[in-house]
Amino acid sequence: MTLINKLTNQEEFVGYYLLKELEVKQTNGTPPKDYFDIVLGDSSGQLSAKYWDVKPMEKETFFPMDLVRIQGVAHVYRERLQVKITRIRKVTDEDHVSITDFIRSAPVLPVDLLYTIKQSIASINDTEMRTIVQYCVSKVEEKLMHYPAAKMHHHAFYAGLAYHIVRMLELGEFICKQRPFLNADLVKAGIILHDIAKTEEMTAELGIVKEYSVQGKLLGHISMAANWITEAAIHSNIELQSEKIVCLQHMVLSHHNLGEWGSPVQPQMAEAVALHFIDAMDAKLQMVEDALDTTPDTEEWTPFIRGLENKAIYRMKL
Amino acid sequence: MTLINKLTNQEEFVGYYLLKELEVKQTNGTPPKDYFDIVLGDSSGQLSAKYWDVKPMEKETFFPMDLVRIQGVAHVYRERLQVKITRIRKVTDEDHVSITDFIRSAPVLPVDLLYTIKQSIASINDTEMRTIVQYCVSKVEEKLMHYPAAKMHHHAFYAGLAYHIVRMLELGEFICKQRPFLNADLVKAGIILHDIAKTEEMTAELGIVKEYSVQGKLLGHISMAANWITEAAIHSNIELQSEKIVCLQHMVLSHHNLGEWGSPVQPQMAEAVALHFIDAMDAKLQMVEDALDTTPDTEEWTPFIRGLENKAIYRMKL
Amino acid sequence: MTLINKLTNQEEFVGYYLLKELEVKQTNGTPPKDYFDIVLGDSSGQLSAKYWDVKPMEKETFFPMDLVRIQGVAHVYRERLQVKITRIRKVTDEDHVSITDFIRSAPVLPVDLLYTIKQSIASINDTEMRTIVQYCVSKVEEKLMHYPAAKMHHHAFYAGLAYHIVRMLELGEFICKQRPFLNADLVKAGIILHDIAKTEEMTAELGIVKEYSVQGKLLGHISMAANWITEAAIHSNIELQSEKIVCLQHMVLSHHNLGEWGSPVQPQMAEAVALHFIDAMDAKLQMVEDALDTTPDTEEWTPFIRGLENKAIYRMKL
Amino acid sequence: MTLINKLTNQEEFVGYYLLKELEVKQTNGTPPKDYFDIVLGDSSGQLSAKYWDVKPMEKETFFPMDLVRIQGVAHVYRERLQVKITRIRKVTDEDHVSITDFIRSAPVLPVDLLYTIKQSIASINDTEMRTIVQYCVSKVEEKLMHYPAAKMHHHAFYAGLAYHIVRMLELGEFICKQRPFLNADLVKAGIILHDIAKTEEMTAELGIVKEYSVQGKLLGHISMAANWITEAAIHSNIELQSEKIVCLQHMVLSHHNLGEWGSPVQPQMAEAVALHFIDAMDAKLQMVEDALDTTPDTEEWTPFIRGLENKAIYRMKL
Amino acid sequence: MTLINKLTNQEEFVGYYLLKELEVKQTNGTPPKDYFDIVLGDSSGQLSAKYWDVKPMEKETFFPMDLVRIQGVAHVYRERLQVKITRIRKVTDEDHVSITDFIRSAPVLPVDLLYTIKQSIASINDTEMRTIVQYCVSKVEEKLMHYPAAKMHHHAFYAGLAYHIVRMLELGEFICKQRPFLNADLVKAGIILHDIAKTEEMTAELGIVKEYSVQGKLLGHISMAANWITEAAIHSNIELQSEKIVCLQHMVLSHHNLGEWGSPVQPQMAEAVALHFIDAMDAKLQMVEDALDTTPDTEEWTPFIRGLENKAIYRMKL
Amino acid sequence: MTLINKLTNQEEFVGYYLLKELEVKQTNGTPPKDYFDIVLGDSSGQLSAKYWDVKPMEKETFFPMDLVRIQGVAHVYRERLQVKITRIRKVTDEDHVSITDFIRSAPVLPVDLLYTIKQSIASINDTEMRTIVQYCVSKVEEKLMHYPAAKMHHHAFYAGLAYHIVRMLELGEFICKQRPFLNADLVKAGIILHDIAKTEEMTAELGIVKEYSVQGKLLGHISMAANWITEAAIHSNIELQSEKIVCLQHMVLSHHNLGEWGSPVQPQMAEAVALHFIDAMDAKLQMVEDALDTTPDTEEWTPFIRGLENKAIYRMKL
Repeated sequence: MTLINKLTNQEEFVGYYLLKELEVKQTNGTPPKDYFDIVLGDSSGQLSAKYWDVKPMEKETFFPMDLVRIQGVAHVYRERLQVKITRIRKVTDEDHVSITDFIRSAPVLPVDLLYTIKQSIASINDTEMRTIVQYCVSKVEEKLMHYPAAKMHHHAFYAGLAYHIVRMLELGEFICKQRPFLNADLVKAGIILHDIAKTEEMTAELGIVKEYSVQGKLLGHISMAANWITEAAIHSNIELQSEKIVCLQHMVLSHHNLGEWGSPVQPQMAEAVALHFIDAMDAKLQMVEDALDTTPDTEEWTPFIRGLENKAIYRMKL
Repeated sequence: MTLINKLTNQEEFVGYYLLKELEVKQTNGTPPKDYFDIVLGDSSGQLSAKYWDVKPMEKETFFPMDLVRIQGVAHVYRERLQVKITRIRKVTDEDHVSITDFIRSAPVLPVDLLYTIKQSIASINDTEMRTIVQYCVSKVEEKLMHYPAAKMHHHAFYAGLAYHIVRMLELGEFICKQRPFLNADLVKAGIILHDIAKTEEMTAELGIVKEYSVQGKLLGHISMAANWITEAAIHSNIELQSEKIVCLQHMVLSHHNLGEWGSPVQPQMAEAVALHFIDAMDAKLQMVEDALDTTPDTEEWTPFIRGLENKAIYRMKL
Repeated sequence: MTLINKLTNQEEFVGYYLLKELEVKQTNGTPPKDYFDIVLGDSSGQLSAKYWDVKPMEKETFFPMDLVRIQGVAHVYRERLQVKITRIRKVTDEDHVSITDFIRSAPVLPVDLLYTIKQSIASINDTEMRTIVQYCVSKVEEKLMHYPAAKMHHHAFYAGLAYHIVRMLELGEFICKQRPFLNADLVKAGIILHDIAKTEEMTAELGIVKEYSVQGKLLGHISMAANWITEAAIHSNIELQSEKIVCLQHMVLSHHNLGEWGSPVQPQMAEAVALHFIDAMDAKLQMVEDALDTTPDTEEWTPFIRGLENKAIYRMKL
Repeated sequence: MTLINKLTNQEEFVGYYLLKELEVKQTNGTPPKDYFDIVLGDSSGQLSAKYWDVKPMEKETFFPMDLVRIQGVAHVYRERLQVKITRIRKVTDEDHVSITDFIRSAPVLPVDLLYTIKQSIASINDTEMRTIVQYCVSKVEEKLMHYPAAKMHHHAFYAGLAYHIVRMLELGEFICKQRPFLNADLVKAGIILHDIAKTEEMTAELGIVKEYSVQGKLLGHISMAANWITEAAIHSNIELQSEKIVCLQHMVLSHHNLGEWGSPVQPQMAEAVALHFIDAMDAKLQMVEDALDTTPDTEEWTPFIRGLENKAIYRMKL
Repeated sequence: MTLINKLTNQEEFVGYYLLKELEVKQTNGTPPKDYFDIVLGDSSGQLSAKYWDVKPMEKETFFPMDLVRIQGVAHVYRERLQVKITRIRKVTDEDHVSITDFIRSAPVLPVDLLYTIKQSIASINDTEMRTIVQYCVSKVEEKLMHYPAAKMHHHAFYAGLAYHIVRMLELGEFICKQRPFLNADLVKAGIILHDIAKTEEMTAELGIVKEYSVQGKLLGHISMAANWITEAAIHSNIELQSEKIVCLQHMVLSHHNLGEWGSPVQPQMAEAVALHFIDAMDAKLQMVEDALDTTPDTEEWTPFIRGLENKAIYRMKL
Repeated sequence: MTLINKLTNQEEFVGYYLLKELEVKQTNGTPPKDYFDIVLGDSSGQLSAKYWDVKPMEKETFFPMDLVRIQGVAHVYRERLQVKITRIRKVTDEDHVSITDFIRSAPVLPVDLLYTIKQSIASINDTEMRTIVQYCVSKVEEKLMHYPAAKMHHHAFYAGLAYHIVRMLELGEFICKQRPFLNADLVKAGIILHDIAKTEEMTAELGIVKEYSVQGKLLGHISMAANWITEAAIHSNIELQSEKIVCLQHMVLSHHNLGEWGSPVQPQMAEAVALHFIDAMDAKLQMVEDALDTTPDTEEWTPFIRGLENKAIYRMKL
């Protein structure tokens, strides 16, 4: 079975794929006919596809997020590869395929990511900080097993959020060793909490963001996480005005660095400066890595990447 | 006794004033001598003053915020009026002067401002919104009796914050009548809460901001007020995820309108748009009014006003 | 007959509508066939529609701004409701429908709006200011009966400009009462004149802007209004250098507040600051109100609004 | 007699100079003594100077713009050359010096500049354009004989405005020859009118701007010139809506190119684009030339120039 | 034969054209059919065209940059003129047409442009500067015979780059005469070198830019030209640190004026300031002239021009 | 002997210090007297100082960068600590003090820093890249032993540049391990070359930048380093167009990320993105660490830091 990012022009193929998007549309002919406008996905990427001459019953059969077996042909349309589906059916138990094989995932198992995060929490020496972090993580532990870190920007895959946190913890550990004046507890706490409220800012399924919640749009994950810290402090009987609570909130509030990027205050502690750059470095390099991974090896340049000043990345031939 | 904003060049005078600022400095002569670099204040404005040849004991006698009786002469120095103090003594009980007579104040009594605010709270129909507002106001009721609304920007006078709120409530009432689709409860609540945490963001005395608190710098009054709403909801057993709490927080978080002005989210509700403009209109017009009031009548132009794109305001002769 | 903003998916309907836009296009088939790409309008909003298999004679029959009777079916296409027209004919006298019933209008009769504006002019105490305002208004009195205030931004409906002025006059009256140091004559004059030249900057019919005039593009309504004041002064023998003329021009020139928004000078008088915020508040709140009104009640969020930092507005369920 | 830009450290000198600025100040000593804080000027530049121990009568003798004979010594203070005046007296008729020898001037006689401008007006073929330009120039002909083009920015010298116009006319003539599709009449008219209202935006004496007028601040020279064109058209019975008037106004209104630089509209005609660049090129190169001229030959770099992105200019040794 | 910019709606025509772009696409019908999506070009401009019902063999016959003979009809589609091709064949020798007749070209012969450039190089008095310029020009002499100056921005035609240089040399000569303090050698050298590396930044054929090279994207023509100067100096044994080399590099590096426009340093020499404005004036006026030329005479306004703040240009009727 | 950052108000002290700056000034008294305006430095920081009543011979004795023995008293002036010097003499051999003890230095010996850099170069696997890096480093090896990385911004101390490189190499090694798709050779080369030309952009002595060179101002260190790579390639017979050279130049040219920060191109390779963030993280965290180190422990906040959005850093008390 051919992976999506290996399909070539004029290739005929048969295989299992995920219907990441499916919309019933009508041709402009007279009378207009129904067709499916589809986005096929598998673990290697995604591709646009058309299925013409849809029968009425098929409209009641196929829905987004279904797994299907497809016979089709790839062809170039407007400079991009596209699939024309000739046959389609839903998978059955006999096919022995599982949806988790068809989505992009973090390269580490969610259960291992969560284990690492919990180990990191356990290693926070300060009792009150540890309590606050524990409270917030336990609110959304289950979602941490699968949420992506963003809709499209970066780490937009299954367990992408937890993977982002774990990689940042590695980088944070290095920086704290290189610069011992940094408070390692605060850096760890900041890393784990900085995007934690994304789990309620967006709704996601199988690593794919469906939409932003009302609360997510009206408050944003930065202020929501600050709320959680307040809530955690009250429930744990920690003084709201205490320096620890204020510093933890400052870490979260300032991690986007600038007002125009959504932070109501700018970093004013060494650890907050560190957090911002640890976050930025991990997110930007992941964008680059994702773009190179999902661009066919034959392409010299990736598509333009919005999070990188809308620049494309060159694949060096060295 | 001459008010500060009525003093003229070469005028000799005697009167009571407040030492708003006092610093001991040394002349460049050899040997250098001590002198006081002073900012005199009264209810009409403030003026720079020098007191030369300070005696050692005087350095232990006079401090900022003291009320003093002064004999001096006004003269123009670098195009601005300045005072040379020839005699100075602290006031005693026999002088029968009170510090409150020497500071700029809102034109309405603090007690009346607070009464109006409380009436407004009482008129909020929604029980839960009213509870939240009440909780937050009661935290800082005493400070509302005297806090200014800002360090210099606007309403920088005794009870300026409460006066700002009351004037906004008047404007809010008008707008809600003109546009009945607005939720008046939410507009009132937003007005009362929007700057409420300035009382902990800054420390102030007699209507003069002394400095920003650590918490104020690290979190900012916008996020602090959001925290208070969370706290109020928990203590009042109101669901944190409920639309009312989310909307109230949105009002506060978005009232600066843009990220670069400190709001982590932009207004996304009709009432939040209204709140931003009610706040802006009251603050800007007060800046203009204050600048015209404290600029001598003989001047055509006020000084440059930072909050108004650094423009001076022309005093029309019509 | 169903109003446009009440149509639902798969609904078959018959009714009278306005052809706000109509273009003859061709399908991609072979041979290509003609069809109409239409925007239907009524007093409640507008909707995209297609009429397939257009007969040659029909191309000579139907034109933009025609009133028609339509039989059709609504269906969702690319997440938006669209109409497929099955029958169409022009209205005749027997249909007893009038075009004015099919366009969005100010909620107050134009004649009443104009009356209010004239009353306001009459109440300007200063003779020369009143003369100038009268001169300018009389130039375009007839257009004030129907012009919108903008192409799409805000008050984009029949008599929207006059309605905008009247609402601003109400707000201006409130502000002048709240802050008596403002010169009410100047505030009134500024409100009435600030957008008056939009009547020559754009051409409009039935409350819909058709296009910008050459003069409108090359000079802009702000400079055009300044020209009118010069013209009015010369014709009324008022000294061009007099403070009144200069102040009136300043009000108009500065009302967009910033250079990048089209004002060659920034507000430098109390009344000019007031005018800018009165204008902004009325325009922005109207955008919000219009967006909520024309978005189906079942939608939680309005479309994105360009004039509000491209944000959508949330419809609170409280 | 030594020119100001030739004075060197520790040089003792005697000579005639202009008191460009003079302020009476007091030392910090006890008792404080009066001294003069002075800016000396001559045709080669200007220099800061002090005159200590001012006698009471001297305060009634010396005023800004007086011509004086000075004995003094130059010395370096805070890295800049300064003069300590040891003797000072006003010039008398016997000194046979004239103020015009002490101010920076355009390198062409004002009468010749004006002659060139008039020749250029006479060469405008279009009668109506010529009439408008003539009307505006005749309003301020006398001021054109001596006004500078700006306070400090560029051409800040005697007859600098007329010189700027004449040089732009030369450049405009070249461009119109190189690109014959440009309307030479419109280019000429635009050049002559673009800054013409600076003569009323500022008050100037002997090529030195004293201050901005109220009208200048409230309207700006761009809108004022547009007003003059309106006025000229009415007085000459030229239709205000005619394309010629609209185009002339567009030239003036758009010549600063961007809203943030004060133009309410951006260039939308070939000639307006040309005017903007002719103006920019002449102004910027003059800034460079002035900076190099008034910086001592021994300096490698000029001071920072605000109009050139605050860059200093390097004096190549090639 | 009708030139493209003279075609009118519903006109049937026969003629020779260049296939500037050709893509095989498929209709949405069932089964979908192949058609050609074409951009036709000639010396007067370009136009979109469709050729329906493409036969399989035709897909192997027609390619971009082919010269063809066409029979077709022009019609308006979405407010723009488009061509429907009814017959198409490739030209043969008997047609006696040459591709160079079908592309937009500089109005001066390339050989003459190059001659002028070489004359200008020969007139550089400074031996070392002349050597550097010669070295760089000789690298790409052949490309200078046909390269455009940009992809779309300005001078996007055959030999546009050389034409841009020659026109700038004319302007530079004028400016150096008007302001003799400028070093004419440096101005000439800067003009000839400023965009010279565009010949390797982009690949172009027949005056049409095909794409940017990898080197062009990663380094940009500004840094590439600086490299060439280094290379030229080494090969000519001129000291790399010498002022001449540094100044020449500064001219090239700073000619875009601002960092956000791609210059790593800002102009800090009189000649660099001059170069920037000579370049800007020539490029902008050429954009205007090109836009007016290629817009049908019947149109009042050109399309929006990205390089001119996205403004359209008005065609005065005077 | 008291270190500068341990001095307290009113403390009398004796000790050895470096005269980092010394200027002869005059008091305003009559007659004015000479005094020294001094900046004292030692390894812990720097402090402003005055020495009154300078004798003529002393003006010939003391110069900047002299080591001196001082008797003085610290006192607070305008809220900052200052020193009044009562006695001063130059050090002699008998004092047994060395200037290197009085300047801030990297916490690692220069020789060790250079060793590390050379080891890193040796570990570059690609022969040509290694050759280029070696060539550039050998040009300035001696300067790398002492140059700071910037004038004030960050790493402004003895051997600060080499220290910055070494710390970045550590971070780069970590990142390359964490993300093996990165080309480690290119990352190392980029880190070593990115700021290498600062050694010729500025002149520095004892870790203190004296001034920018003419070449430094006209070209900037980014373009200078690109020149060096060109030079190195030519001297090493490496093809200038080869991908390695282009990629190395891209690393250097893009490392400031944005045009407004001085990079003519933006990062378009994974390694260039990594380099930018490695540089930013090391520079920003060093700014924070330096600010906290040189601010007395008793201060809660550091001064404002220009490179960190002009924010002060809070010293957590946790």
